[in-house]
Amino acid sequence: MIEKIVIIGAGNLATQLSLALHEKGLGIIQVYSRTIESASELAGKVNAEASNSLQDIKTNADLYILAVSDKALQSVLNGISIPKAKLVHTAGSISVDVFKDYTDTFGVFYPLQTFSKNRKVDFSNIPICIEANQEAFAAELFELGRKISSNLHAISSDQRKQLHLAAVFTCNFANHMYSIGQELLAEKNVDFNLLQPLIKETAEKITELDPIAAQTGPAVRFDEDVIKAHEESLNMHPDFQKLYRFVSQSIYKMHSSIK
Amino acid sequence: MIEKIVIIGAGNLATQLSLALHEKGLGIIQVYSRTIESASELAGKVNAEASNSLQDIKTNADLYILAVSDKALQSVLNGISIPKAKLVHTAGSISVDVFKDYTDTFGVFYPLQTFSKNRKVDFSNIPICIEANQEAFAAELFELGRKISSNLHAISSDQRKQLHLAAVFTCNFANHMYSIGQELLAEKNVDFNLLQPLIKETAEKITELDPIAAQTGPAVRFDEDVIKAHEESLNMHPDFQKLYRFVSQSIYKMHSSIK
Repeated sequence: MIEKIVIIGAGNLATQLSLALHEKGLGIIQVYSRTIESASELAGKVNAEASNSLQDIKTNADLYILAVSDKALQSVLNGISIPKAKLVHTAGSISVDVFKDYTDTFGVFYPLQTFSKNRKVDFSNIPICIEANQEAFAAELFELGRKISSNLHAISSDQRKQLHLAAVFTCNFANHMYSIGQELLAEKNVDFNLLQPLIKETAEKITELDPIAAQTGPAVRFDEDVIKAHEESLNMHPDFQKLYRFVSQSIYKMHSSIK
Repeated sequence: MIEKIVIIGAGNLATQLSLALHEKGLGIIQVYSRTIESASELAGKVNAEASNSLQDIKTNADLYILAVSDKALQSVLNGISIPKAKLVHTAGSISVDVFKDYTDTFGVFYPLQTFSKNRKVDFSNIPICIEANQEAFAAELFELGRKISSNLHAISSDQRKQLHLAAVFTCNFANHMYSIGQELLAEKNVDFNLLQPLIKETAEKITELDPIAAQTGPAVRFDEDVIKAHEESLNMHPDFQKLYRFVSQSIYKMHSSIK
């Protein structure tokens, strides 16, 4: 059973995951980060030791969660050496096999959510995608996951990579559309809050309808006058204009191919 | 005071707005649509007469709400002739001045929301953007609006056009990102519901943080390895691949210009 955990990383995901585990009584015994300041900041919140030296990582943890950027993962793996450590990473796009030259027992514990440092998230419904190289270890990870979420899934590395890609579209790219909306409204002194009910309904609608069926607006109607007028409004924003044109075409194409 | 209303149009917006007004006790006395079937379908729901002839539109209503597509608006205006009719349209991108050769009292009553025919919406928090060519009529429209929503705003034609444009980005384009996510997951037999908590949190997060501050993911981190891997995964979807590249660049550019 997993009781003592070392968290490697102190970014948004590491922070939120550590807080969730700590709240459910799991022991975070140490937090490692490249800088002692960020390690200490998170360690303080979960009553753990802080370290910025990979050599000083405790060797008696039941699990090591590597919640670092994809870029940093390999160098962390090269820097730590703990015999028989059970290692997991939390990355969407990295295969579980990244661990195979480093330890015998390894897996992935990937919470599918967008994390910002200062926004507390409720883990209880966050999908956690679990994968392991041994069945017994997968079972341990499921047991751990169940303590913080009721939404657990066995997901292969190949599926997880696609999930991460789909998450970039549905989260990061959708959020970028919000950013553009905010920038456009600011130019006309219109409060961005006017868009909040629309944004909320757009996200809620697809719990009931497929996104394809939920689509509305000038592109799916192929309302050329509106599209043209919108493109003209964007003359001073060549990037947004290009994006407007391109996404409108993509919407129209997707819907034409279905009809 | 506005009590008797004729609804011109029977699409998604006409349907949801009529239902909301009817529920609050306003009298929808007639519904016009190009086909008698669609006029009757909506008229039946709000206890109104149905018509598919512009010549037969009742002349005794306090308000005529033209909730038709932008393309159809002009031909409806050319087809009706009711002396001293108070006319409003519900369009995002059409100036209030469209009415000025047709009547003396006119305005706009624009509910900023995404409407689908079979998804009931709660009007109580939907922003309604109001504009009129006379102050007294604006006051009447605000009074009417207050019966169905507590979120009313005086918005000029110029601001409304920008709001509509921003709504296309934040609603239609965000929803298209959801459609792409669903299509990508289907290829790997992953349930789209796994993305629902992420989509919900992405939309909720920006009630607390600006979208710019809420952004996460490989583009804002400029994580080239992930971006490259994602682009490769999209080799079979050249359109999505182009979109991925373009939106990632746009995110990176927006954030670089702020730093």
